[in-house]
Amino acid sequence: METNPYNTGLDRNPANYQPLTPLTFLERAATVFPDHTAIVHGALRRSYAEFYARSRQLGSALARAGIVRGDTVSALHANTPAMLECHYGVPMCRGVLHSINTRLDASIIAFQLDHAMSKIVIVDREFMPLMQEALSLASVTPLLIQYDDAEFAGPYMPVDAQNFEEFLAAGDPDLAWLMPEDEWDAISINYTSGTTGDPKGVVSHHRGAYLLAQGNALTTSMAKHAVYLWTLPMFHCNGWCFPWTLSAIIGTHVCLRQVRAEPIWNALADEGVTHLCGAPIVMSLMISAPDEAKRDLDHTVQFFTAAAPPPESLLADMKTAGFDVTHLYGLTETYGPAVVNDWHQGWSDLPPAEQVTLKSRQGVRYLALEGLDVLDPETMAPVPRDGKTMGEVMFRGNVVMKGYFRNPKSTQEVFAGGWFHSGDLGVMHPDGYIQLKDRSKDVIISGGENISSIEVEETLYRHPEVAVAAVVAMPHDKWGEVPCAFVELKKNAMVDEASLIGFCRENLAGFKAPKRVVFQELPRTSTGKIQKFILRDQARNIGAK
Amino acid sequence: METNPYNTGLDRNPANYQPLTPLTFLERAATVFPDHTAIVHGALRRSYAEFYARSRQLGSALARAGIVRGDTVSALHANTPAMLECHYGVPMCRGVLHSINTRLDASIIAFQLDHAMSKIVIVDREFMPLMQEALSLASVTPLLIQYDDAEFAGPYMPVDAQNFEEFLAAGDPDLAWLMPEDEWDAISINYTSGTTGDPKGVVSHHRGAYLLAQGNALTTSMAKHAVYLWTLPMFHCNGWCFPWTLSAIIGTHVCLRQVRAEPIWNALADEGVTHLCGAPIVMSLMISAPDEAKRDLDHTVQFFTAAAPPPESLLADMKTAGFDVTHLYGLTETYGPAVVNDWHQGWSDLPPAEQVTLKSRQGVRYLALEGLDVLDPETMAPVPRDGKTMGEVMFRGNVVMKGYFRNPKSTQEVFAGGWFHSGDLGVMHPDGYIQLKDRSKDVIISGGENISSIEVEETLYRHPEVAVAAVVAMPHDKWGEVPCAFVELKKNAMVDEASLIGFCRENLAGFKAPKRVVFQELPRTSTGKIQKFILRDQARNIGAK
Repeated sequence: METNPYNTGLDRNPANYQPLTPLTFLERAATVFPDHTAIVHGALRRSYAEFYARSRQLGSALARAGIVRGDTVSALHANTPAMLECHYGVPMCRGVLHSINTRLDASIIAFQLDHAMSKIVIVDREFMPLMQEALSLASVTPLLIQYDDAEFAGPYMPVDAQNFEEFLAAGDPDLAWLMPEDEWDAISINYTSGTTGDPKGVVSHHRGAYLLAQGNALTTSMAKHAVYLWTLPMFHCNGWCFPWTLSAIIGTHVCLRQVRAEPIWNALADEGVTHLCGAPIVMSLMISAPDEAKRDLDHTVQFFTAAAPPPESLLADMKTAGFDVTHLYGLTETYGPAVVNDWHQGWSDLPPAEQVTLKSRQGVRYLALEGLDVLDPETMAPVPRDGKTMGEVMFRGNVVMKGYFRNPKSTQEVFAGGWFHSGDLGVMHPDGYIQLKDRSKDVIISGGENISSIEVEETLYRHPEVAVAAVVAMPHDKWGEVPCAFVELKKNAMVDEASLIGFCRENLAGFKAPKRVVFQELPRTSTGKIQKFILRDQARNIGAK
Repeated sequence: METNPYNTGLDRNPANYQPLTPLTFLERAATVFPDHTAIVHGALRRSYAEFYARSRQLGSALARAGIVRGDTVSALHANTPAMLECHYGVPMCRGVLHSINTRLDASIIAFQLDHAMSKIVIVDREFMPLMQEALSLASVTPLLIQYDDAEFAGPYMPVDAQNFEEFLAAGDPDLAWLMPEDEWDAISINYTSGTTGDPKGVVSHHRGAYLLAQGNALTTSMAKHAVYLWTLPMFHCNGWCFPWTLSAIIGTHVCLRQVRAEPIWNALADEGVTHLCGAPIVMSLMISAPDEAKRDLDHTVQFFTAAAPPPESLLADMKTAGFDVTHLYGLTETYGPAVVNDWHQGWSDLPPAEQVTLKSRQGVRYLALEGLDVLDPETMAPVPRDGKTMGEVMFRGNVVMKGYFRNPKSTQEVFAGGWFHSGDLGVMHPDGYIQLKDRSKDVIISGGENISSIEVEETLYRHPEVAVAAVVAMPHDKWGEVPCAFVELKKNAMVDEASLIGFCRENLAGFKAPKRVVFQELPRTSTGKIQKFILRDQARNIGAK
């Protein structure tokens, strides 16, 4: 029996309850600021009225092609206007957007298409050969649509696919688009690039997308009419929800097909870009560009970085160049960034090295995330807040995924004990800021002692001639595992393996120093993450010798 | 049968679903920025750690005193730290905060206490005599707690009440405060000062408070660490949710017992206030202050105004004084402001008179409100977007109240047809901005023609010697009703009744000109709204003569 008088005769109804969805952001932006520039792409300028009309047209055309609630629409694109339109048009007919990483192998794409039961695939012309190969391997036979991007200069190959503009033109630009039936309905599916086993399909919902999209603006104080440059791939966790954030603040998207220094600097200077995101490698690319490619900026630019803590020299260079760098952290399972290195005013007065130490920490929860902690995964008890004791970073709240698609076992495991288990190992500092120490699988267990590969990497980064370092486990007869380092040196560097190992022994407990150092270019994912599983394979071969 | 594969095995659980509540904002602020100043009150400075600890203590003490989910805790306060603590401490034990307007009569307060079934009453010492009178008239016998504010200089009267600090001290500052069981649970009740019939208790929920509190920051681009001055009464719609907004952006509350020009100017200059809210009368008060009370400001201050469109000369004066004025609109039923006059950059280049015309419009929906329209209340069809056709302003979305407490009939009426009926009459401009033309009950029906009292008032305001004007219906033998104007003149003004009526006849259709003009000081509510029901009574007497 309900005894709370405040729950009697005070029920939800259409006047006081609507599903939360980021689709309402675009409707508002187009109604209030129809003429404001929503999208810049090369010479193309699209207003919010046009962006909204085209998104509705796409939603209408998809509905006419048979898409209903819970149907998957796949998208394989560079950072183009079409990709932005997919982020609105697909959910406007209650479809689920499946963004595909353009660097994947055809076989993995085929797996995703089949697993997501894709009904329609929209593909940028550049990636059509890849998609055709994937479709030849897949069981599903989705409707194929090709987008001809004006900024893609590659050769035109005849293909048996509908043209995106023609498909869209058949839709109704005045479509009364559909709100989700429930804010818990799926808005997207993104497959994680698991290093073992099949990829897992992370399902996000409208409620979480609404909250994280607003959270991006609130957490980082992004103001009305910000200008955002697309250096982060949109296929990566729905571009961290920024395709939706920009509509909330009536900002401008500056699209970019390729992450190269010159167009980045030109966009910063010519389009008045105020914000961009990327891994540290994007910063390196910008900073190491030849002087003639760089441009003078008349405003401070906010750079949101994730994936790895930015090295000290890079941070210093960025500061000099007029950038304010904020370190974010999250996973596909948390809609992108859900953790922010929330900066204290006083920290800016500390010596640069201390600032870098503070900036390398992942930080604290977004406002949109209700819980963030470092727990012992066995006992689920928080680790001591001492900055030393390792535990697993865990999340709880409204910006954690619905679960893994068609994978109840993994879903159950990853939510065990009422927390999302990130698989990342870290510590909790006394001030409540978390810091990653390793992925669970990246811990090196040597003679029963845990070695954090990040700790060894950080030591290597302190060597003046090391540009990039990655450390993985190498099998060892006596100790079980030992650290093996892979290193890219700076230009004209002269250091050799023995002296680098010696440098580590001077700065680390002896058992933590790498037993081998390999100089080579490191394998990276499309988002700039170092592919440690490839290095682990290499290290296994080295260790076996 | 569920056929949507994205709703299979992907249910809510504690890891991915938590009730939305603004209480999490304070927890985050206190954890991440414990030393940041949360509250300034005279010489008092309280950090976020202290604010959070005291709120938890209050929640703990209230729970020990028997407050459980759905119990009402009433608060009668000036804008003090205790009132801020009530906004967190009461819901932390799942109580419902009932803020009382300090200008009300004891009999109305007694009605509210009984209707809300108040269990505990927390009262500022200044208002204890009023509360004691109310309690002598009420049936309920709540626990009485008195707050002794250091900034209140009035005489101390012995009273049979618990001391707030002692009550609070018995609570646990480390209370593991309770999340709401459901985000739809009530967080507050606010009684509207209805001009006829009993006051209605507007019930707000945690979800709406979370969304509107964030909406304030997002809609107005309030950045991290903003400093907010409490010129708006906190008892008025929970201070438009700003007690919660400030925690979301880790800002600073500057409390203020009385709205007087000197402390306002001092706070702006000495505390670095960046934002404040109030009716146009607060602006008048600041602008008309003697020069020696004014202070030079080294930063632009955001002023959010509501209740009535600000007159042209006032806007010009505010601009000169370094303020950026934004016009907001909403009702208690919409958590305070849910509509914003969202300014277009290009409008700032228009002639001042055109800017004022644009600024007088109420505007467009907050991001947190899903629907805003002007509808024909009979047919529920939208009126033409012509800026002329009147209809009723209606709201739909997550920042509309749960309903009226213990009043199913009024609740049903006000939500008829799936929209919240505001009772305000207005028009929709071609660009989607709404403008109020009148309260339904303020329309003057003269010879079968509707006259907008606001239109007549706007005409009077254009007369150079008119300071404030209010127009209401006066009974008339021939025409049924005719307009009667009440006017405050500017200092040293010489205009008389006949020439003001003549001025209106020159600028309005003849039947719209007031038949009488009365020069007097206008009665106002505590929030600066002109009390038209008093003027209507006066006009009735004049017309009957």
